[in-house]
Amino acid sequence: MRYAAGVDVGGTNIECGILDAQGSILLKRKMPTRPDSGAEDILQRITATLERLYAEAGVAAQDIAVIGLGIPGLVDPEVGMSLRAVNLNWIQVPVAAMLRELTGKPVFIDNDVRMYTYGEAVAGAGRGYEYIYGITIGTGLAAAYVQRGGIYRGHRFLAGEIGHIPVNPAGITCGCGRTGCLETIVSATGIARQARTRIVQGEHSLLRERFADVEDIRASDVSRASREGDGLSRDVLERTGRELGRALSWVVPILAPDVIIIGGGGALAGEDLTGPMRQEMNARLLQDYAGRTAIRYAALGDDAGVIGSGLWALSQLNK
Amino acid sequence: MRYAAGVDVGGTNIECGILDAQGSILLKRKMPTRPDSGAEDILQRITATLERLYAEAGVAAQDIAVIGLGIPGLVDPEVGMSLRAVNLNWIQVPVAAMLRELTGKPVFIDNDVRMYTYGEAVAGAGRGYEYIYGITIGTGLAAAYVQRGGIYRGHRFLAGEIGHIPVNPAGITCGCGRTGCLETIVSATGIARQARTRIVQGEHSLLRERFADVEDIRASDVSRASREGDGLSRDVLERTGRELGRALSWVVPILAPDVIIIGGGGALAGEDLTGPMRQEMNARLLQDYAGRTAIRYAALGDDAGVIGSGLWALSQLNK
Repeated sequence: MRYAAGVDVGGTNIECGILDAQGSILLKRKMPTRPDSGAEDILQRITATLERLYAEAGVAAQDIAVIGLGIPGLVDPEVGMSLRAVNLNWIQVPVAAMLRELTGKPVFIDNDVRMYTYGEAVAGAGRGYEYIYGITIGTGLAAAYVQRGGIYRGHRFLAGEIGHIPVNPAGITCGCGRTGCLETIVSATGIARQARTRIVQGEHSLLRERFADVEDIRASDVSRASREGDGLSRDVLERTGRELGRALSWVVPILAPDVIIIGGGGALAGEDLTGPMRQEMNARLLQDYAGRTAIRYAALGDDAGVIGSGLWALSQLNK
Repeated sequence: MRYAAGVDVGGTNIECGILDAQGSILLKRKMPTRPDSGAEDILQRITATLERLYAEAGVAAQDIAVIGLGIPGLVDPEVGMSLRAVNLNWIQVPVAAMLRELTGKPVFIDNDVRMYTYGEAVAGAGRGYEYIYGITIGTGLAAAYVQRGGIYRGHRFLAGEIGHIPVNPAGITCGCGRTGCLETIVSATGIARQARTRIVQGEHSLLRERFADVEDIRASDVSRASREGDGLSRDVLERTGRELGRALSWVVPILAPDVIIIGGGGALAGEDLTGPMRQEMNARLLQDYAGRTAIRYAALGDDAGVIGSGLWALSQLNK
């Protein structure tokens, strides 16, 4: 039996897992990233964690065929290098070679959202589809594309940063320095901020009664309040959904995906967000597209990154 | 020596050519399409024209290895079928099989804009690039994508209809029935209409003196007047360029092309259109993209469709 290790490196936590060739996770563990400790230390801790996992899962180390790693930021998967990961303070780190040296195993790396989308594509909500566009609504808004079993990256691996397309000239300043980027609205951060701003401006909301300090309001609170009938929360999710629908009305004619997968914390808003999103998107699309693009929620939850990394690595090994 | 025949079928004219494996055209001929005569008649006339071309070019018929055909509308290149070509009145026409029957040669077909972009990609402005986005500003606005030598089509071959994304809710009604589609502005038709409308509304322009009937104004007239210093014409091209730049600020993060090729009659406006386009696009893009996406004019002129069809067919034969 051949197994893979899948590792999802985030700015806060790292998830390590062992999975079989069908993408079933045998065992998974979360640990803090501690970015300040540096790349060498992080990769050593990943190595140690994986070795413990092999033992606990009862898998012989030599049955682990390959290791896959998802990393935030810009990644060159061809030479196995993290080109730039702001959260980790990494610039030009030869991750694959370092981890191969530590573990003695083949290592394949890619951007975390690409690994996540690959996981959903082959083992989650994208099963049965060929052209899979994955969107994660989290701290920011990111996207990745899996076409016919391959990860799409574009020139210099740059495809995917749709969160920084300006959509609102009257909007707030984005972290990137420009104004009104898509992710200032369509992100968990954006959802929470829209609610907070309107409450501070005096609008009525259940959230106002619930939180002494509006700064404590998060996107999940907005989603819950919306389900409970809070008008402001519902309106925030509707505006966010419509903005995302407008963005997808560009994605669809450019790529013609057969499915769009919505994931990340913001997806927990469910139909209150995706209903208006779908409506706006379909109203803007030619009939050929509108009737032929499925919308699905991500199905693997927190496991998608680990599963995608492991399965991608296995697929590369077989090449 | 191996040659290919390339055929570019348009609503008004058909171009037939013979080319060598490097994409050099030996001989080319234009003939009227006469769509009312029906698919069988059109394909018979193409067959007769090609045979005359072989003789005139001094190429033995058996040295023509393959025939490639670009067709407007929705094409299924896998089964060789024109699914829908409104201008030709074709629905579900098995073009490849019919032409193979008539000529005895292998036939490969695809959408005309894809063949055009493939020609530019491998033998024109896209040489040396890997991820090539081609845009044609003609009667409408169409786009195609060639990635690493392959034609990208998406789900059900639908990728490319970016002309029908609504961008101006206060705009005019598009041929598709919706309001303010991108191609109502960014197209040769759109350029001419913008100029006409403003002249009718009383704005001053060189074009007003030049044309007794504003309906005679075409996009090429607007381009020429702009180069001669006409303020209205210049402003029309600037607005059109900015709108295209905004559209490209979606294309680039989604696909990360390394080059965008601008072709079609509207491209003749040159820098008066592409200057504002580039400025708007780059202002809206993250630095990673803005500095790394080349903009080129199409280089093969009217030959791109014939060259692309022929070279694509040759590339498929070698598979």
